Amino acid sequence: MNSELRTSTRPVITGIVSVVLLLGSLHVLALRTQLLSRQGGVTHISSGLSYKTYYFEQEIDHFGFFVNGTFKQRYLLADQYWHQGSGPVLFYTGNEGDITWFCNNTGFMWDAAEELGAMLVFAEHRYYGESLPFGKDSYSDAKHLNYLTSEQALADFAVLIKGLKSTIPGAQNSPVIAIGGSYGGMLAAWMRMKYPHVVIGALAASAPIWQFTDLVPCGTFYKIVTEDFHGSGLGCSDSIRRSWKAVDNMSSTAEGLEWLSSNFSLCAPLKRQEEATVFKSWLQETWVNLAMVDYPYEANFLQPLPRWPIKVVCQYLTAPTAPDKQLLHGISQAVKVYYNYTGNAECLNISQTATGSLGYMGWYYQACTEMVMPMCTDGVQDMFEPQKWDFGAFAEECQALFGVRPRADWADTVYGGKNIKAHSNIIFSNGGLDPWSGGGVTKSLSESLVAIMIPEGAHHLDLRYNSNYDPESVLNARALEKKYFKLWIKQAAANGP
Amino acid sequence: MNSELRTSTRPVITGIVSVVLLLGSLHVLALRTQLLSRQGGVTHISSGLSYKTYYFEQEIDHFGFFVNGTFKQRYLLADQYWHQGSGPVLFYTGNEGDITWFCNNTGFMWDAAEELGAMLVFAEHRYYGESLPFGKDSYSDAKHLNYLTSEQALADFAVLIKGLKSTIPGAQNSPVIAIGGSYGGMLAAWMRMKYPHVVIGALAASAPIWQFTDLVPCGTFYKIVTEDFHGSGLGCSDSIRRSWKAVDNMSSTAEGLEWLSSNFSLCAPLKRQEEATVFKSWLQETWVNLAMVDYPYEANFLQPLPRWPIKVVCQYLTAPTAPDKQLLHGISQAVKVYYNYTGNAECLNISQTATGSLGYMGWYYQACTEMVMPMCTDGVQDMFEPQKWDFGAFAEECQALFGVRPRADWADTVYGGKNIKAHSNIIFSNGGLDPWSGGGVTKSLSESLVAIMIPEGAHHLDLRYNSNYDPESVLNARALEKKYFKLWIKQAAANGP
Repeated sequence: MNSELRTSTRPVITGIVSVVLLLGSLHVLALRTQLLSRQGGVTHISSGLSYKTYYFEQEIDHFGFFVNGTFKQRYLLADQYWHQGSGPVLFYTGNEGDITWFCNNTGFMWDAAEELGAMLVFAEHRYYGESLPFGKDSYSDAKHLNYLTSEQALADFAVLIKGLKSTIPGAQNSPVIAIGGSYGGMLAAWMRMKYPHVVIGALAASAPIWQFTDLVPCGTFYKIVTEDFHGSGLGCSDSIRRSWKAVDNMSSTAEGLEWLSSNFSLCAPLKRQEEATVFKSWLQETWVNLAMVDYPYEANFLQPLPRWPIKVVCQYLTAPTAPDKQLLHGISQAVKVYYNYTGNAECLNISQTATGSLGYMGWYYQACTEMVMPMCTDGVQDMFEPQKWDFGAFAEECQALFGVRPRADWADTVYGGKNIKAHSNIIFSNGGLDPWSGGGVTKSLSESLVAIMIPEGAHHLDLRYNSNYDPESVLNARALEKKYFKLWIKQAAANGP
Repeated sequence: MNSELRTSTRPVITGIVSVVLLLGSLHVLALRTQLLSRQGGVTHISSGLSYKTYYFEQEIDHFGFFVNGTFKQRYLLADQYWHQGSGPVLFYTGNEGDITWFCNNTGFMWDAAEELGAMLVFAEHRYYGESLPFGKDSYSDAKHLNYLTSEQALADFAVLIKGLKSTIPGAQNSPVIAIGGSYGGMLAAWMRMKYPHVVIGALAASAPIWQFTDLVPCGTFYKIVTEDFHGSGLGCSDSIRRSWKAVDNMSSTAEGLEWLSSNFSLCAPLKRQEEATVFKSWLQETWVNLAMVDYPYEANFLQPLPRWPIKVVCQYLTAPTAPDKQLLHGISQAVKVYYNYTGNAECLNISQTATGSLGYMGWYYQACTEMVMPMCTDGVQDMFEPQKWDFGAFAEECQALFGVRPRADWADTVYGGKNIKAHSNIIFSNGGLDPWSGGGVTKSLSESLVAIMIPEGAHHLDLRYNSNYDPESVLNARALEKKYFKLWIKQAAANGP
């Protein structure tokens, strides 16, 4: 069993301004270093999966002709199951991270390849992994970051598919299906919307294509996170709701800060009261991460976790009215489920909550430009400290971090918002436990724009390998998804090449 | 009756490399001056049409966030026929020229507005007319020209429509139909393909969306031009076919050059044998222009012309085997039908063949980047000197002129080429006499991708006002187009806002 991908933590962070402001600064420094140090080689994951790694020459700017340079886009190809000349291509529209990581964590495609006689292609998203348009300078400033957009990424995918079809013998008329999860799922859906001549259909798994301005309430995301905890143990969400004040209380004294640092086994002890904000952001992100990956079996995504991890976490959060220290001790036990399930962690680092295979800085930039996802909390419908969505402050933050101004309306304008009925052949799958389902398409819009709900599913559970612990809903979802694939392939064959 | 728009001469020119090289150089100089001198004010056309002129603030770069500037896009709005709150919007997707000229030459929309209770909007294409992203520097170099693309223009239209809907009382739920002719028709079709959430349908009149690499034979365009002349008088196309050699013969001596200059009343007499190439290009472009505007009644488009002008021209071209001087005298009489029907022209200027309302340099640039339209002649199936399509030479020319490299495959990749069946609600109308019909969609692709043929029509005759001289086919076409508009409006109402 492979580790599962975990993608879009960052919209959560960037969604709340004060969190961005603080965690953002910490992260950007840490991640810049991390990003640069990873650029040299290929990340090797011992997965037992067999694929070949290739590089495709892409225009840096598909939408302009002044910058005439090209870069190498990495893609992975597995053709051992492919029925050459007739089999389809399942094309993973890579999202904000190292493509090998997505490849190794999308077991569904490997299962489907066998069943459909399909070729698998995993295409890396520009500015992530090894696909850096300007090499180590790609993130150096707004000028170099200028070509990091979803439109450019979609164009990369279209050009790559066209290129593969014209060069791989027997692939000329192969129908191509776009598949992706999270932001990759958004890209899969948009790929079908914008390039229906290139892909015959798309599986958009846990894709919050409506998590944009004025399309869904900004509080939905955190409300779902809260419900996950509320439903996983008595007193659980209430304990977390009370914990913020307890942290404030504790961090108001030097002794309290020391107690927190020691109790949470922090690698870098808290020194000043102001650090409580960063500390709370880290806690908040931890709960969000848990909500996304609340899978029914042991899995290793960002950290190794037990099955139904929120249930395990909630075992430590049963006394919401306990005194501060007792409450926070429970919280510390709870976060250690997330950060130290294996018992190997020597200390906890509050500047990191997830895998290094994701490109945080790239996603920050995207959130600061076109992927503006309003988020808010009220402390009533959710268990977090109240925080309004403040676009102005968010925009200032983006200006300070990257020298760019976000365009809140653009995603809606270019991708259609809720008015997408003119399109066809897209499956939107959603997990009932997944906070991103709040921004997803959870009801079918037409016969060929199909929503699939997986009530017991977290973030794109359907993209994972089958497991004995899988709830029936996800097995049904995977079966239905493959049924649609076959239908689309049949339709495409009937329409001719 | 208004003058008719005449749009895309330039693809013809840019299509043949040697023509580009020579005419191109002449034109670019002349047109740069012309363009700059026109920027200050609004072009006034005494048309009796009532509309208001507005300016809308647009991002210079919709697809990037580094260039953060904006510019004023001009648009014209007429709401005197609009049923506020329920009536549709007919939106002209402006092409490569001054929008007032298109507005004044698209009578069909004014007729339809009354019938449909519609608001009319004519949106100017960036880099043309007054809609210059960098003011007088817009054309100064490749860096400033970088945002002149069809994708940016479509994004302008989408943002503008969204802006109008949110600010004009009663327009929020108005269905919008995109309408355009020639390149504007291509934009209308692409608008529906890429932004189906913004426009409920499109009328793409005489829109050669398939005039791209490998989609149609490169010779079709000039073949249709030839057929127009062949069918308009005995010996007509044969006379023109023979004229090239006659020009070569005449221009080989100083006396012959003088004879040509005098006989053709050239403003600038031909001095050197090499100028014969420019002279022949000018003749060729004249025949092409005539083919595009071979309308059934007197009209004033580029120049005032009699009804069925090619028939009039062909009266002078009845003796293909006559001696050179006699043949060329006929040619000179023929071109004067085009350039001096009113009798007011003092001399003929071979550096210009069409109205100053078109932005030649802009279109040159677009042809040199993404609108690469291969053209060729063989002298057998057409009446022109044989000229192969040579992409390499064309690319060199573009590099020399603008410092950019054309991408021959891009239009096909981004707009789908012949594989566009996934789309809906587009009418492709074509004139049987129009050379651009060779690159158009002339057969219906589905129930809602409808081709309308107008056998007696030249370039988007259907977009003109009704006339007593109109052939029945164009009256039927206009009626059918309005029928589809009503159907789409009804569909949109049924689907809800």
